[in-house]
Amino acid sequence: MSKRRYAVVGTGAIGGLYGARLASVGFDVAFLGRSDVESLRRDGLFVATPTGDLVLDAVTAEGDPKRIGPVDVVLVTIKTTGQAALTELLPPLVRPGTIVVLMQNGFGLEADIAALLPDAVVLGGMCFVCATRTAPGRIDHLDYGAVTLGQHTAHGGPSGITASMAAVAEDLSSAGVRVATRDDLLAARWQKLVWNMPFNGLSVVLDAGTDEMIGDARARRLVRALMEEVAAAADAHGHGVGDGFVDKMIADTEAMTPYAPSMKLDFDAGRPLESAAIYDTPLAVAASLGVATPRLSMLADQLHLLDARNRR
Amino acid sequence: MSKRRYAVVGTGAIGGLYGARLASVGFDVAFLGRSDVESLRRDGLFVATPTGDLVLDAVTAEGDPKRIGPVDVVLVTIKTTGQAALTELLPPLVRPGTIVVLMQNGFGLEADIAALLPDAVVLGGMCFVCATRTAPGRIDHLDYGAVTLGQHTAHGGPSGITASMAAVAEDLSSAGVRVATRDDLLAARWQKLVWNMPFNGLSVVLDAGTDEMIGDARARRLVRALMEEVAAAADAHGHGVGDGFVDKMIADTEAMTPYAPSMKLDFDAGRPLESAAIYDTPLAVAASLGVATPRLSMLADQLHLLDARNRR
Repeated sequence: MSKRRYAVVGTGAIGGLYGARLASVGFDVAFLGRSDVESLRRDGLFVATPTGDLVLDAVTAEGDPKRIGPVDVVLVTIKTTGQAALTELLPPLVRPGTIVVLMQNGFGLEADIAALLPDAVVLGGMCFVCATRTAPGRIDHLDYGAVTLGQHTAHGGPSGITASMAAVAEDLSSAGVRVATRDDLLAARWQKLVWNMPFNGLSVVLDAGTDEMIGDARARRLVRALMEEVAAAADAHGHGVGDGFVDKMIADTEAMTPYAPSMKLDFDAGRPLESAAIYDTPLAVAASLGVATPRLSMLADQLHLLDARNRR
Repeated sequence: MSKRRYAVVGTGAIGGLYGARLASVGFDVAFLGRSDVESLRRDGLFVATPTGDLVLDAVTAEGDPKRIGPVDVVLVTIKTTGQAALTELLPPLVRPGTIVVLMQNGFGLEADIAALLPDAVVLGGMCFVCATRTAPGRIDHLDYGAVTLGQHTAHGGPSGITASMAAVAEDLSSAGVRVATRDDLLAARWQKLVWNMPFNGLSVVLDAGTDEMIGDARARRLVRALMEEVAAAADAHGHGVGDGFVDKMIADTEAMTPYAPSMKLDFDAGRPLESAAIYDTPLAVAASLGVATPRLSMLADQLHLLDARNRR
């Protein structure tokens, strides 16, 4: 059987990194870009990684998804602040059975895409990675890089480990990416939020890295209280993160290389924040279940003011 | 009866403003300063006010309270971050019956001073004023200026309107200061905290003035939620702020000239924040009464990290 054909929607840090990894081991990867299409075609893609550089001289890059056409797997790697564009960008890339992997932050994304593309298989891909695009076609992969996959189901319950998940996991693994598969996508999404909701927001509000927050006793206590609000929402939603998960996240962060969360990078670059996907949608789920989230809501309100100012 | 003799502890914005007002109408006012004593003696005191300048060429300034000796009224105007120094500074200024007015932000200050000075009458003076010291002996009085007085009682209950309160109110009024007297000091302190706890902290965390916070719908909602936590603590403490008080504070702030709270001025000047008096003490009272204050505690934790960084 020939290798699966990939389209990567978005040529930022996530799309550039994982797309380049797949291309570098022989997958046919087409990148759907925007203003950087010409530069990608001319100069290729360069990814500096902790273990050496990935250099792709010949890159298939298009600005129009119709010129790529249907593929086996679509990796969606744009920021969720541009999610509305997917209504136009995705259908030309999809035929019945195409696997669409949302390698994005946030909550509730897969249901929207499954509604848009009823014949596709929709996965969530949670990337635990520190990477940044420094110029068109130039990615700095600084640290980490694992991807967790889960599959969307119409009923919201666990999918089990499906053939689609196994296929994408196999491809990414063959490209040197550490992959985990999870039978309950929403539980995996909530687990990611346990870390993302405290650290993304606080890193912007406090202008601080994970090391400063975890190193200050009162800030660490606040991080824990925020995490516990997320965990309570996950429990009430029927996709609990499991006993001891908050403790593990605190311990993991203490052991971690200091890390600037993606929202901090977005804020510092003057980009709009992914507040809807990371805060508003999960907080609406929590509210609908009667779970109190005073600290998370406060953080979202603080971010709202800073984001509005940052974009003026 | 001759005019009461005053000592003003602290020669910052508050001490300079109210001390100069009293001196300008003929009260004998001695200023207890620190490094600025020589400059006050040499150059006097200059207060720019919205209605004209106050110029005092001859100022009594001392660095040692024993050189001032006991007076009728002591106005304590230092930041509460220096409260420990009062143990040494106040006793030489006090004889039985001396009125000590704590013109400071925060909560629980009067009980400590009453324990230190059992023969004094201890008042709280809540200043609603926007003023800043721009140089030694140079005060900019920008806006507002009213003072609310209440009297400490050993039992914590209302004092009624006492002769001591009336005396200080009369003197300040004669110097052109708007004064209100309150029969319940702790209720007045909680009322001040309803405004101070949200706006002081958020102005630092969000680097924002009152106009930006009150003008953003979600930040205004957050301010209201923070105010309601303060009001709930006041109610549980038996010193409720009264129906409609939170609404009034929101409406007053909407109508107000944009204002940088004192904590914002302290932070921007690199001074330590008055977190103990404005947050930690009232939050400990709330916790002892079983009142949940998740948002206020979060704000205090955020301030703690920013203050620690600001002082490194």
